[in-house]
Amino acid sequence: MRQTYLRSTDVESAKSRWLDAFKNYELATERIAVVDSVGRVTAEPVVACMSSPHYAASAMDGYAVRSHVTVGAAPGYPLYLQVGIECFPVDTGDPLPNGTDAVIMIEHVVLAGNTIGIEQAIAPWQHVRPVGEDIVATEMLLSRYHEIGPVDVGAMLAASVAEILVIKRPHIIIMPTGDELVAPGIELRAGNIIEFNSHIFRNFLREWGCDVTVTLPVRDDESRLLQQVQESIEQCDMLLVLAGSSTGRGDFTEEVLRASGELLVHGVAMRPGKPVMLARVQGKPVVGLPGYPVSAHLCLELFVRPLVYKLRHIAEPKPKTLKGYLTRRLISPMGLQEYVRVMVGQVGAKYVVTPLSRGAGVVTSLVKADGVVVVPATSEGFAEGDQVVVTLQRDSANIEGRMVCIGSHDLALDVLADHARLKEGVRLSSTHVGSMGGILALKRGECHFAGIHLLDSRDGMYNVSFVERYFPGKQMVLVNLVGRVQGLITTKGSAGSITSWHDLTNHRFVNRQHGAGTRLLLDYHLAQNGIEASQIAGYSREETTHLAVACAVHAGEADVGLGILPAARAFDLNFVPLALEQFDLLFHKEDLVDPCMTALLDIIRSASFKDEVAALGGYDTFKSGQIVWES
Amino acid sequence: MRQTYLRSTDVESAKSRWLDAFKNYELATERIAVVDSVGRVTAEPVVACMSSPHYAASAMDGYAVRSHVTVGAAPGYPLYLQVGIECFPVDTGDPLPNGTDAVIMIEHVVLAGNTIGIEQAIAPWQHVRPVGEDIVATEMLLSRYHEIGPVDVGAMLAASVAEILVIKRPHIIIMPTGDELVAPGIELRAGNIIEFNSHIFRNFLREWGCDVTVTLPVRDDESRLLQQVQESIEQCDMLLVLAGSSTGRGDFTEEVLRASGELLVHGVAMRPGKPVMLARVQGKPVVGLPGYPVSAHLCLELFVRPLVYKLRHIAEPKPKTLKGYLTRRLISPMGLQEYVRVMVGQVGAKYVVTPLSRGAGVVTSLVKADGVVVVPATSEGFAEGDQVVVTLQRDSANIEGRMVCIGSHDLALDVLADHARLKEGVRLSSTHVGSMGGILALKRGECHFAGIHLLDSRDGMYNVSFVERYFPGKQMVLVNLVGRVQGLITTKGSAGSITSWHDLTNHRFVNRQHGAGTRLLLDYHLAQNGIEASQIAGYSREETTHLAVACAVHAGEADVGLGILPAARAFDLNFVPLALEQFDLLFHKEDLVDPCMTALLDIIRSASFKDEVAALGGYDTFKSGQIVWES
Repeated sequence: MRQTYLRSTDVESAKSRWLDAFKNYELATERIAVVDSVGRVTAEPVVACMSSPHYAASAMDGYAVRSHVTVGAAPGYPLYLQVGIECFPVDTGDPLPNGTDAVIMIEHVVLAGNTIGIEQAIAPWQHVRPVGEDIVATEMLLSRYHEIGPVDVGAMLAASVAEILVIKRPHIIIMPTGDELVAPGIELRAGNIIEFNSHIFRNFLREWGCDVTVTLPVRDDESRLLQQVQESIEQCDMLLVLAGSSTGRGDFTEEVLRASGELLVHGVAMRPGKPVMLARVQGKPVVGLPGYPVSAHLCLELFVRPLVYKLRHIAEPKPKTLKGYLTRRLISPMGLQEYVRVMVGQVGAKYVVTPLSRGAGVVTSLVKADGVVVVPATSEGFAEGDQVVVTLQRDSANIEGRMVCIGSHDLALDVLADHARLKEGVRLSSTHVGSMGGILALKRGECHFAGIHLLDSRDGMYNVSFVERYFPGKQMVLVNLVGRVQGLITTKGSAGSITSWHDLTNHRFVNRQHGAGTRLLLDYHLAQNGIEASQIAGYSREETTHLAVACAVHAGEADVGLGILPAARAFDLNFVPLALEQFDLLFHKEDLVDPCMTALLDIIRSASFKDEVAALGGYDTFKSGQIVWES
Repeated sequence: MRQTYLRSTDVESAKSRWLDAFKNYELATERIAVVDSVGRVTAEPVVACMSSPHYAASAMDGYAVRSHVTVGAAPGYPLYLQVGIECFPVDTGDPLPNGTDAVIMIEHVVLAGNTIGIEQAIAPWQHVRPVGEDIVATEMLLSRYHEIGPVDVGAMLAASVAEILVIKRPHIIIMPTGDELVAPGIELRAGNIIEFNSHIFRNFLREWGCDVTVTLPVRDDESRLLQQVQESIEQCDMLLVLAGSSTGRGDFTEEVLRASGELLVHGVAMRPGKPVMLARVQGKPVVGLPGYPVSAHLCLELFVRPLVYKLRHIAEPKPKTLKGYLTRRLISPMGLQEYVRVMVGQVGAKYVVTPLSRGAGVVTSLVKADGVVVVPATSEGFAEGDQVVVTLQRDSANIEGRMVCIGSHDLALDVLADHARLKEGVRLSSTHVGSMGGILALKRGECHFAGIHLLDSRDGMYNVSFVERYFPGKQMVLVNLVGRVQGLITTKGSAGSITSWHDLTNHRFVNRQHGAGTRLLLDYHLAQNGIEASQIAGYSREETTHLAVACAVHAGEADVGLGILPAARAFDLNFVPLALEQFDLLFHKEDLVDPCMTALLDIIRSASFKDEVAALGGYDTFKSGQIVWES
């Protein structure tokens, strides 16, 4: 019998049940050399073995004296002291010669033969670092449970502390499970999945101060898994079992954890990450992480990280947050606490927040994410324009000063972003929502510019009429990025049979999303040719980029799509050129003088940008960087 | 001739001259395995080698079907499909069986023998992850100059990228100089200084992504230093010469840098760190860092870190800042930009900011610092109570929720702080400014409680009359921390000759600072015995802790001081008990119910705390934790 439903616990209850279960669980301690102790945590107070300075030292370059011999010196009434008898040259850090108790700064003496002249008396202990000025032997340098940083190492060495007792680094075993897993680099067959999750998690765990061992993938065999879990738990402080946490045929993790210990939580009312399992086996923590990288990553952050920090007895770092405005509606089911990865842009004085793909398997959404927005279980989500709090996962230095382009996708934008990295202080991030999406985003002040290629079906002209309609009375500029050839992308096999718009009616098509310029182009030509959308199989299957369209054709999921030449080339597909279109960047005229915008326009006009774009094929860079229209 | 003055440049000019000089200086690149690439920076865009998923995969556990066979199923009108013929069981991640194009979730079927019943039709591609849903082959995964994190490694492996071109880690050589330097662990003589600076700096540089080599200390010999600099610069990307940057006798660094390259900046209008040298030798950056750890640390942050990040082509992380109120005046000279290390406490809703020792040699001020306050060159400083901006050097999780005690110093407070670390969420930081300083700080709302032992010379009673005078009409509480014995701390040699207050008149004394309870105790007994302060040599030499007083006696800088038994024991000194005093904690009555305060009081009342304090010697814990007075 398959168990088809999981009882789920809310996030906070799950977390506190989990942490409470290990309230008295302690890591071992070990004695290590201070020079190797950065990042470790003290297991007892560290006490100075020696004072620093350990002798009375000159705090300045100058002359050491018995202070009482300087009495009487005054401006205009110089006193002369014999070098080597009444005063002694010292450098900063030198021990005070016997009997001396003060240092006259080199700047305050006049050298005259074998004597120095001074015009000021000096008090005892002036410019002297007494013994223990910095550290007094037996004083507590560091408290217990202190995470050791570079300066702490310096202080301990200065106090002649050579070895200290620290908490052992938590040893965590990661155990991937599943017949479908293969190591990176192995030839793939359908159904194989590259085992990359453990590489993500071991690197996070190392950043959090753990030692990590990754086992070979365990096959889907309940007795093998049970044996592996029982053997591994003895060798580590915490065990992470990857995948096998849903209710599919090969998922034995739940049974294994029940058989070998106590399942504290199975199923948390969150998305992604719902099927997570939290268990205690032989008194040690075991987590069953879902197989999808985004789900597992969230469970790692919500359950594993706090426990690691608790075991290390240090505070979990507090991430930065910022408040920003949603660029689109964010719907979320009641009853699940949802964690949505977002990109953040700074446009003017405000931050704009764009939700990324919420697929639990979309590892690129982790790569692109600047942060996370939490939608509580009691909320159905947020409306477009709502203010939300973003928990940042990237340093804000990477967000501020980044130009945000929203609109249509083109490979030339990737080239532009890459060239921008070569200029200091200029960065570009692009979000692909189609040309109309770009126009609306610019109108709402969510981006610096929009990439658009919108064909007006009345006059066959690009972009201008749309800008006039959506920005009446505004001062706008259109700068050409590239001219590009659009055409039919087909398999090599169907090269001869699909050559015109009419051939779309008897093949499986893959379309672009609503608002995409490429879709407008299709609709324009279908109308011109008297073809109805309903005549085309697959008209409703939507992809959001040219590459995704080409990929679908390459995978045999469709016979033909409309797109650009480089996308066809990328998959070694056939390409039937049918139209040349104009891809422009739209922005407010006042931004023409913005230094970042100026830098981007300089790049677009450069020979190296044009050459690199031309090499992609199917591009016309003749007008690249030209202002093609302004209001 | 000694050069006694340095021309100094302002901080911003020095920084831009330095960074400009290496505008075109680039690190080499290398090809490395993706699995080892965390923390590295891409030197070119990273492009996907394979799509992910690379086959059409089930996105759910359930049954794969040809979607068109489900047409007609509706609530109340179930349709039955034969397993193995019309539908096929699949788990999440399984490839779709040939011909199928959609997956029905397990939750939406009813198993009936060898068939499944469904009450809902399904659209094509539902619950299917099409090829390239996450990553499309040839798409740009990471831009150039991207710092690789754990999730990026996952995405690259998922896209079958095995090796990438990255920027080499900057190789930095640290070269300590000076005859006085000895390695940690070597027996010390007067004038020897433990070479700990390189250990601080190599650890910072590693955190910033560098490879570091530390040379043996170079002796003070100009030709040797010249040779070493010229040999080292060929083997590294940047050279840091430690010490030798002031103008003392053994400081040849300036001459050596002038002889072997170009000295860009010598002397910056800042404190500490004024004598820093910034140079270019064989086209490579060389920094002459001052010998004092606090100075050198600041120069490292201001000049080395930005150049390291620039060479790595990534943004320097932006530290968190907070606004707080100064607990004391902060005077700073005009013309120098001063960087003052501070401790931060959260009392009620506001942050209180306490400047730490500004000695350039005080490495413990780096250890204690929560952050830094900058006093611009154009300012003479800030008044007590002024709002200042603190740049944090410690995660704010370590500041929030920390109890702040300001007042007199006692070892029992260290024991209390250490025991507090054993309780979750309770931390204690103590600042030692004497009993009166503690009362004034509590009055200004800068701390949660004050540690005081103030003797009223009129009635010989402790603390109460002071609280009544400074907190009229307020609801205050005094809780006893310990009773403690005060006495004369002398060398073993003078054990017989110093036994009473009168013996202070013919020995060298070391005193405590104004406002210290121990000083009040001294003055009370001097008055009782008819002794004048002017009769005591060293009455004006002030130390701020018991340990520092004992240390001065131990070092032979004084014959006798007044203090507590554990301080005498720490240095194996003689102790003449003369008084038993009452050390109390003073706080507002409303804080009696604060959970952190409750936790601290529980500790003070615990047997383990009392036992540990009693073991120090010279303590009476009979009343520890008792409320001895309340208003």
